[in-house]
Amino acid sequence: MSTGVTPGSWCSKCGDIEGILSDITGVLYNSGKDGGTAIPGSIEAVAKLKAAGIPLRFCTNETQCTTIQIANKLNRLGFSIKPDEIVAPAPAVCGFLKQRNLRPCLLVHPDVLPEFAEIDTTNPNCLVVGDAGEEFNYGRMNKAFQFLVSLDEPLLISLGCGRYYKEDDTLRMDVGSFVAAFEFAADIKAEIVGKPSPAFFQQSLHTMDIRTSEKAIMIGDDIVSDVGGAQKCGLLGIMVRTGKYRPSDEPHSYVTPDGYVNNLAQFVDMFLEHRI
Amino acid sequence: MSTGVTPGSWCSKCGDIEGILSDITGVLYNSGKDGGTAIPGSIEAVAKLKAAGIPLRFCTNETQCTTIQIANKLNRLGFSIKPDEIVAPAPAVCGFLKQRNLRPCLLVHPDVLPEFAEIDTTNPNCLVVGDAGEEFNYGRMNKAFQFLVSLDEPLLISLGCGRYYKEDDTLRMDVGSFVAAFEFAADIKAEIVGKPSPAFFQQSLHTMDIRTSEKAIMIGDDIVSDVGGAQKCGLLGIMVRTGKYRPSDEPHSYVTPDGYVNNLAQFVDMFLEHRI
Repeated sequence: MSTGVTPGSWCSKCGDIEGILSDITGVLYNSGKDGGTAIPGSIEAVAKLKAAGIPLRFCTNETQCTTIQIANKLNRLGFSIKPDEIVAPAPAVCGFLKQRNLRPCLLVHPDVLPEFAEIDTTNPNCLVVGDAGEEFNYGRMNKAFQFLVSLDEPLLISLGCGRYYKEDDTLRMDVGSFVAAFEFAADIKAEIVGKPSPAFFQQSLHTMDIRTSEKAIMIGDDIVSDVGGAQKCGLLGIMVRTGKYRPSDEPHSYVTPDGYVNNLAQFVDMFLEHRI
Repeated sequence: MSTGVTPGSWCSKCGDIEGILSDITGVLYNSGKDGGTAIPGSIEAVAKLKAAGIPLRFCTNETQCTTIQIANKLNRLGFSIKPDEIVAPAPAVCGFLKQRNLRPCLLVHPDVLPEFAEIDTTNPNCLVVGDAGEEFNYGRMNKAFQFLVSLDEPLLISLGCGRYYKEDDTLRMDVGSFVAAFEFAADIKAEIVGKPSPAFFQQSLHTMDIRTSEKAIMIGDDIVSDVGGAQKCGLLGIMVRTGKYRPSDEPHSYVTPDGYVNNLAQFVDMFLEHRI
């Protein structure tokens, strides 16, 4: 039976791999009503990797909730994932802010605010924008813009840079689109914390103590942000044909994945088979 | 007494000029509470040009109200201006839509809707975005985006492309910023109807029956949109030191006006003096 997949050159490198990064939405589960649904085979695939002792992190641009809430949601679907196995932009930016002595004005979703509990937001000197959902209204956006251009050196930090995403079968504009509005209004470029920023992939590897990005694989359903971003950072990038994958992604105009797989389950089986 | 202005080469061309375009906000009046205030000398300057029989149009990117409302507002301040002397993006786009058989989905300010009364909006095939103010909220923006990407060939038309403007001493994000969000989300470029689009200046000249843009002058307080835009279309571009003019506009990094004047009154006096 054809699987539509031929083992790529990535398979020959499996023996050297020290850890795996996986996207969450579209790889582990599809979002939707009542928390969405697990993608067939993904629950078992994660369990197999863990059983084989493969270091693993879940690397997401989700900024509408905390990593604890993400883990809870996944575990309700049948996964067994701890919050500290999840790398997300909000906790990542907190390290970045402390390191650079930055105090943010936050335009983020109310549910992600607990991630910023220990961050000093008095007398702010930068604007941090996440996927704020309904908070993206004329009043809030104008206030954020007025604050931004009141700074001597306007600094705009974007948690991810997605164009749009699908939720409950509906397309919604993602944080990158609203950040584009601020970039145009203030005539500046945002710094991105999240995929496809190389620093974000580096940080994800750092949590697994992996120092050589060539010894890690990223698997995701966003060919530019997941696959292309990881490749730019030196990782192998595998494209999965679930989630927001579209046949038109294959071939893509400027990103050539190290391999295509039908789903996470197939990836894990191929990985474990070629690892021996 | 020095006026801070030396007659530029534009003065020697006044004899050939067949008509004048003037920006409204920042040249005729400054916006503010209770309708704003006329800029000293501007009421008389407009009257002098009219008395001298100089064809004149007021060329604005205002899209929060109709040309009738703009004329009423100006006339309450003491001007004597008819709606058909005002060229604005909303009426201009109506001609454009009819010409190209386009039926718009409108994301505009409620007060400007009367301009679209005769436009067919059934089964829309393009998105027209104006300075919609409070209508720029998450729900409306997402609906507009979903409509846009549902089109076989997404067409986005922007009424002007300003970054921001000042109202009641407060900066507000302008239509161009919100259009940048749609451009990023849908990965397309908007077509602009309004300044600095050459077609918009051409249309303004057309209403005065002027066929040679070199025989017209545009005066405005936005060095890029008013002055640079007009110059690209072949007109002489004069920068006025009122409205949103800032000393840092002089010199500007890439626009060199044909002349600077302190205000509209000074421009009109110089124009009439050198015309003889």
